[in-house]
Amino acid sequence: MRAVVYKGPFEVAVENVLDPKLQHPNDAIVKITSSCICGSDLHMYEGRTAAQAGIVFGHENMGIIQEVGAAVKDRKVGDRVVMPFNVACGFCKNCLGGFTGFCITVNPGFAGGAYGYVAMGPYPGGQAEYLRVPFADFNCLLLPSGKQHEADYALLADIFPTGYHGAELAGVKPGESVVVFGAGPVGLMAAYSCLIRGAAEVYSVDHVKERLDKAAEIGAIPINYDEADPVQQIKDRRGGLGTDKGIDAVGYQATSAGSSAAGGEQDEVPNIVLNQLIETVAPTGALGIPGLYVPSDPGGVDENAKKGALSINFGRLFEKGLRLGTGQCNVKQYNAHLRDLITAGRPKPSFVVSHEIPLDDAPDAYVKFDKRVEGYTKVILNP
Amino acid sequence: MRAVVYKGPFEVAVENVLDPKLQHPNDAIVKITSSCICGSDLHMYEGRTAAQAGIVFGHENMGIIQEVGAAVKDRKVGDRVVMPFNVACGFCKNCLGGFTGFCITVNPGFAGGAYGYVAMGPYPGGQAEYLRVPFADFNCLLLPSGKQHEADYALLADIFPTGYHGAELAGVKPGESVVVFGAGPVGLMAAYSCLIRGAAEVYSVDHVKERLDKAAEIGAIPINYDEADPVQQIKDRRGGLGTDKGIDAVGYQATSAGSSAAGGEQDEVPNIVLNQLIETVAPTGALGIPGLYVPSDPGGVDENAKKGALSINFGRLFEKGLRLGTGQCNVKQYNAHLRDLITAGRPKPSFVVSHEIPLDDAPDAYVKFDKRVEGYTKVILNP
Amino acid sequence: MRAVVYKGPFEVAVENVLDPKLQHPNDAIVKITSSCICGSDLHMYEGRTAAQAGIVFGHENMGIIQEVGAAVKDRKVGDRVVMPFNVACGFCKNCLGGFTGFCITVNPGFAGGAYGYVAMGPYPGGQAEYLRVPFADFNCLLLPSGKQHEADYALLADIFPTGYHGAELAGVKPGESVVVFGAGPVGLMAAYSCLIRGAAEVYSVDHVKERLDKAAEIGAIPINYDEADPVQQIKDRRGGLGTDKGIDAVGYQATSAGSSAAGGEQDEVPNIVLNQLIETVAPTGALGIPGLYVPSDPGGVDENAKKGALSINFGRLFEKGLRLGTGQCNVKQYNAHLRDLITAGRPKPSFVVSHEIPLDDAPDAYVKFDKRVEGYTKVILNP
Amino acid sequence: MRAVVYKGPFEVAVENVLDPKLQHPNDAIVKITSSCICGSDLHMYEGRTAAQAGIVFGHENMGIIQEVGAAVKDRKVGDRVVMPFNVACGFCKNCLGGFTGFCITVNPGFAGGAYGYVAMGPYPGGQAEYLRVPFADFNCLLLPSGKQHEADYALLADIFPTGYHGAELAGVKPGESVVVFGAGPVGLMAAYSCLIRGAAEVYSVDHVKERLDKAAEIGAIPINYDEADPVQQIKDRRGGLGTDKGIDAVGYQATSAGSSAAGGEQDEVPNIVLNQLIETVAPTGALGIPGLYVPSDPGGVDENAKKGALSINFGRLFEKGLRLGTGQCNVKQYNAHLRDLITAGRPKPSFVVSHEIPLDDAPDAYVKFDKRVEGYTKVILNP
Repeated sequence: MRAVVYKGPFEVAVENVLDPKLQHPNDAIVKITSSCICGSDLHMYEGRTAAQAGIVFGHENMGIIQEVGAAVKDRKVGDRVVMPFNVACGFCKNCLGGFTGFCITVNPGFAGGAYGYVAMGPYPGGQAEYLRVPFADFNCLLLPSGKQHEADYALLADIFPTGYHGAELAGVKPGESVVVFGAGPVGLMAAYSCLIRGAAEVYSVDHVKERLDKAAEIGAIPINYDEADPVQQIKDRRGGLGTDKGIDAVGYQATSAGSSAAGGEQDEVPNIVLNQLIETVAPTGALGIPGLYVPSDPGGVDENAKKGALSINFGRLFEKGLRLGTGQCNVKQYNAHLRDLITAGRPKPSFVVSHEIPLDDAPDAYVKFDKRVEGYTKVILNP
Repeated sequence: MRAVVYKGPFEVAVENVLDPKLQHPNDAIVKITSSCICGSDLHMYEGRTAAQAGIVFGHENMGIIQEVGAAVKDRKVGDRVVMPFNVACGFCKNCLGGFTGFCITVNPGFAGGAYGYVAMGPYPGGQAEYLRVPFADFNCLLLPSGKQHEADYALLADIFPTGYHGAELAGVKPGESVVVFGAGPVGLMAAYSCLIRGAAEVYSVDHVKERLDKAAEIGAIPINYDEADPVQQIKDRRGGLGTDKGIDAVGYQATSAGSSAAGGEQDEVPNIVLNQLIETVAPTGALGIPGLYVPSDPGGVDENAKKGALSINFGRLFEKGLRLGTGQCNVKQYNAHLRDLITAGRPKPSFVVSHEIPLDDAPDAYVKFDKRVEGYTKVILNP
Repeated sequence: MRAVVYKGPFEVAVENVLDPKLQHPNDAIVKITSSCICGSDLHMYEGRTAAQAGIVFGHENMGIIQEVGAAVKDRKVGDRVVMPFNVACGFCKNCLGGFTGFCITVNPGFAGGAYGYVAMGPYPGGQAEYLRVPFADFNCLLLPSGKQHEADYALLADIFPTGYHGAELAGVKPGESVVVFGAGPVGLMAAYSCLIRGAAEVYSVDHVKERLDKAAEIGAIPINYDEADPVQQIKDRRGGLGTDKGIDAVGYQATSAGSSAAGGEQDEVPNIVLNQLIETVAPTGALGIPGLYVPSDPGGVDENAKKGALSINFGRLFEKGLRLGTGQCNVKQYNAHLRDLITAGRPKPSFVVSHEIPLDDAPDAYVKFDKRVEGYTKVILNP
Repeated sequence: MRAVVYKGPFEVAVENVLDPKLQHPNDAIVKITSSCICGSDLHMYEGRTAAQAGIVFGHENMGIIQEVGAAVKDRKVGDRVVMPFNVACGFCKNCLGGFTGFCITVNPGFAGGAYGYVAMGPYPGGQAEYLRVPFADFNCLLLPSGKQHEADYALLADIFPTGYHGAELAGVKPGESVVVFGAGPVGLMAAYSCLIRGAAEVYSVDHVKERLDKAAEIGAIPINYDEADPVQQIKDRRGGLGTDKGIDAVGYQATSAGSSAAGGEQDEVPNIVLNQLIETVAPTGALGIPGLYVPSDPGGVDENAKKGALSINFGRLFEKGLRLGTGQCNVKQYNAHLRDLITAGRPKPSFVVSHEIPLDDAPDAYVKFDKRVEGYTKVILNP
C-alpha cells in the first residue's frame, strides 16, 4: 500500500510499504478515509526527536473496517470508525481508571502508546491506505455510516478531544471565565470546548491574525500578545480581576512577544506561558495543560530546557492556591460524547481544517504546514 | 491582658497589651483556653519575613465565647469553640466556593486573612488571654462543652485540617498508596488523614528518628531519606512501581539528604521535594501540596529562590500526566467533619503534641521549638 | 406601601401595608423593581395550602438596596441586586454544604425558608414596593448597575436556577441526551440549561402547543404526550434506546394524556411523570427532580396522594440502576454563574416571560395566569 | 466435573456436568478454589424466580487460571484470580462509564450479566470445579499467589464490593453519620465500608442478635428494631437529628418489627426500609440502595409488590431534598482497591464467613442457610 514515510529531517515521501495484517485475534484492519497531519508530527519531521527514518506517520485516523480478528466481538467489516491517537488495551489499571493515554499494556516499559509516533510502540501510522488497530472493540469508535461530517469526525482522533481535555483538566464550568493560551488547532478546540461547556468568557491569546480571527468567529475574545502584555490586557478588560480558569495549548515551544512579527528567529521561552497562566488566573483557580512538555528536548534553549526542567513561579502558584492538570489526552474519555454532539449538528470543529488533499500530496503539505504558509493550519489526507 | 508579642528576630516576650474589643456587630470575643505554636510562627520568629515588632502571635486558637456582637445569631456566651486560622467572611465569591483560605473581604487587596500573621490582615493572634473573632457565626466552630479532647480539638484550628487538606488536594481514596514527604506535625497529620480516608499504604519520608517512629506508630511506613534515595526506597518496596498519590508537607525550606545528620549547616534545596514527588508518584497520579511555598523569600538560597521561582521537572510531570493542588488550607471545609470524628473517639491527633505549657513559658518554648531540642514538636499554650 | 395581599382562595388584592423595617443588623431593605409571579404562588392562590389570608406574596425579587443594617459589610445603598427565593444564613451546616434551600437557621423547626410563602418563615414577599432581606451580604446577589437585562436577571431569583438545578441533579454533561417532562417556565429553563451545559439532545414533553413551540425555538425536540405515549415516541426517535438523563419539571400535579385537550376536568395522576421518567431513561442514568412533591396535599386525588405517598416502579428503577436527586433549588449555588452568563450576553432566559405589568394589575394577572388564558405564562410585576 | 445443580424449589444436588470449554479467544478456564453461597442464590432456591432446573449456581468465584484463549493478553495459566459476579465486556458504553453491572454486550437484550443466575445470560456458575470466564483480561482480578487471605479475597467477588457500593451510592465521606438497614453479610460489609471510608458514626439496624453483635464488634452501633422504632432510637441518640446518609442493605423482602421474634410467619413489608430510611436521614442527605428490588416478584405480598411498585413517601423525600442511588454493584469499580486494602492487612472482611465446607456438602448447607440455623450466615465452598 501507499504510505507517508519519514525519510529524515524535513523529508517525508509517499512510498509503497507492506500492507498491515492481523497480528492478534483482537485486531482490526481499517481502510483509511481520513488521516490528519498534526502539529506534533512536525516535531519528528523537524528532526527534533529520536525518530528513525522509515516510520509511517499518522495518529489521527478514520476509515472503514476491512477485516476483523477472530476475537473481535462488537465491530464488524464495513463499520465506519475513528480511532483515538492513543493505543490502549481497556483492561490495565490505567485504562480502567479512564487514563487510556497511559495504558501500560501496549507499549511495555512506558505508560502510553500511539500510532506512527516515535517511542510510542510498534504501531505504524495511518497516513496510508490501511491501518492495523489493536483491541479493536475498545479502540474503534463507531460512527454513523455514510459520508456526513467526515472532517468533523476525523478531528475526534486527537485535536477536538485534546482541546476538550484542556477544559476538563481545568474543570471549566458554566458561567466561568477562561484564558486559553494558543489559538492553533488545539487552542481553538480548547476555546470551542469551553464555550460548549457553557463558559461565560473565553480569552484566546495568540499573535497570528488568522488564528485570532477564528477565535473571534467562534465567540472567544482575541488577545494579541504582540500588542501588549496579555496578562494585563485581560485584567484590564475584567476590572482588574483574573480569570477563573486557564488552559495552556502552547507547550514547551512557547515564544516571547513580537518574536515572529520581527521576521527573524523566534525567541523560544519554554516557561513563558506557564508563568503567564499563573499570573492571569485568579486565586483558587485551575490550569489545564494539554500543551506538550517533554522530559528530554535535544533542541532545548538551555541545559535545563534540554532535560525538561523549567523555572516556575511556584511561590506565586501556591500563594494563589492554584491547581493544575497535565498530560496527553485520554481520547476515549471524551470521543463518544463529542461524536454525539457532532451528530446532533451542534459543534462543527472542522472550521479549523484548512486543507483536504490526496495522500500523494502529503510531502508538499508537510513543507508548507511546517512553514505555516498558504494558510496551512490543519490538513486532512484522504487516501 | 497578657500576650505573646514579637520583639524582633529570635525574640518574643509575654507582655501586657490592650484587651480586644468588639469592633463590628458580627464579632465575638473568645477567652482562649488553648493556642498552639505553629511551625509557620517560626518563619516570623526567625526574622525571615517582613513581620514588624509588636505583632501578637497565634493563629491556632480555641476557647470559650466571652462576649458577642449585636448581629451574632447562632453563637452565644459560654460556647466552647475553635477557630480556623483563616479569617473569612462566608459570603464573598471565594468563601462561597469553599475557599475560605482565600477570602477577599477580610484583608483588602489580598486573597486570605489570618490571626497573628504578617500581611494577613489586622487580626492580633491568640497566644494571649483573649481574641477578637470577626464573623463569629461563620468562624467559631462549636465544640461539645466541657474539657474533653482539649488538645485534639485545638488541632482543628490548623494542622489537622491542613494535613487533611494535603490528602484532599491529592484526592486520596480508599485502597490507594501515598507518599508523604515530611513527618513533622503537618506531615504526620497528612499521613494520619490518608489512613482515616482508607489508604492502603502510606510512606512517610523524613530523617528525624522521633518523627519516623511516630509515623510508624500510626500505621505509616517510615522512609529515612538519609539512608538512601527515598524515591528508590519506595519503588523497591513496591516492585518498581510508584505510588498512586503524593503529598508535600515540607515546603520551600526542604533540605538535601544527610544535611542535619552531618551536624553542620543544612543545605536548603527548595525544589527537592517537588521533584522527588514527581519521580515517586506513578503516571496518572496526583500531588497534594499543603507545604508552604512563598513568592518572596529574602532568605532564599539564590536569586530564583528569593522570588519563589523553582526549577521543576515539568517535562516529566507532563509525561506522567500528573495533577497537583496547592495552597493554604480552607479549614472550614474540613473542621466540622474532623470534629465529629474526634467526638466519636476515633482519631486522636493530639499524639503529635509534645508540650502543653502556660502562656508565660512561651518565650522559652519558642527558643527550644526553633532549635528542635528537648523533643519540642508541637506546643500548646494554655493561658 | 402597596403590596399584593392574599385574601382567600382565588382572591388577591393590592393593598397598603406597613413598610418593612430593618429588624437585625444584617438586614437590608430593597426597593423592588421586578417581582415575578410563580406557578407555586398559585398553589396558595387556589387555596390548596394552609396559607392564611394576609400573607404578602412574592419570592422572586429584584431591586435596588434602599437601606442597610449596621452589620452589612459588602452591600451598600444603591446596589442593584436579585435575591434567591431561599432565605438563608450562610453559616449553618446545610448552608456551608451549599444547601441554602435547607437553611436551618432562618425558619426554626424546618429546613428551608422563603419570602412570601406559607410555612417558610416570617418573611413577607416582594410583590410590593419594598422587601426586607435578612443576611443581606449573603442573600443579595450584586448585578451590573443600570437597566440592562432586567427581565433576564429577575429570573435568577427562582426559575432559571431551578431549571438549572434539574440539570445539576441529573448530572447532565456535554454530549448527553436528556428528557425534560414539562415545558412550563421551569421546564423550559431546565431544557435551556441542559443545552447551555452542552447536551446533545433534549426532549421536551408537554401537551400545550405554545410551550412546545418555545421548546423547539431554543433547540429542544418537542414531544406532545397527547399524540402518543411519550416514552415510546422518544425511544422510536432514538433507535429503541432511552435517554442518558431525565428531568421532572412537573411535580405532583401531573396529568394524564389528553386530559386538558378533552376540555373537561384534568385527570391528576401524581406518579405518572416519575414512572414515565423511569421508563424513558436508560440503565445507569440519572433523574433530576426539581418539580414539587409535597408530604401533605389536602387536595390530593386519593388517601395516599393526600400524604404524599406515591406508587413508584421501584423494582424497575433498581433494575436499571438509576440515581435520582430531589428538592428545592439551592439558588445560591448557581445564581452568580448564571448572572455572568447573562451579562456576557449568552443566554436570554427572559424568552419565557409573557407579561410585564404594574403592581396594581396583579389581581387580574393572577386570575388569567391561573386559567392560563391570554398567553399568561410568566408574569413580572414592576412596582 | 462436579457442580451444584438446581433441581427445583428447595432442592439442589452435587452432580457431574460437562467441563467448561473455551468458547471464545478471550475466555479463560478457572479451577475454582472458593465459591460462596449468596443470599440471592436463595431467591432461586426458594423457587421465587423463573429459574429452571439444571442451572449451575455460583456467582462469587475465585481460583487458579487453568487455560486461556488465544486472545488473552495479560492473564496466564497459574494466576490466582477472583471474578466479579458481573460478567462484563469492558468496551460497551456502560462498561466504559464504569457501570460493569450493566454491560450491554454479554446478555443481549438486557443490561447486565452474571454467572449462575436466572436471566443473567448463558454463564454457568462456579459452585463447581471449573468455571469459564469471558473477557478474561477484563474479568479476572489478579491476586497475590499463594493461599493467604483466601476467604477475604473470595468476598471480593460480590459482598465486600456490594457493601462498599452502598457507601459509594450514598457518597459516605469522612466524619459523617450513616444508618445501615440490615446486618446480614451485605449490611455488615456496608457498615464496614463506611468505617473504612472514615465515617464517624454508623448505626446498624437489624433484629438478629448475632448480626447486631458482629456490627458492634466492627465498631458500628447496633439498633434492634424489634425493641422500638429504629428511626426514633437513632434520633434519640443523636439529639433529635437524623443521619447524614443511609444505606438499604435489605431490599424487597423487608419485614416489619417483631415478625421473626414472634416465631411465626414473617410479615413482609417491601417498602418499610425505604420509608424508614427517608425518615432517618436528615434533609440534604443521600441514600445508597444496594439491597435488591425487582420489577417482577411472583411471590409478592400484593398486586403492586408483584410488579415491583412500592408506595414511597415521595413528598417527604422531596421536602428533605434527598438523593438516592440504586442498582447492582459494578464490582470492577472497587475490587482492585479493596484487594489492595486486604493485601495491606487492614480490613478482614472474612469475619462474616460462618462456614467453609467441601463442595459436596452444598445441599446440606443450602437447607441450613435458607433456614438460618446453626449460625449459617455466609458459606464458602472449597471444591
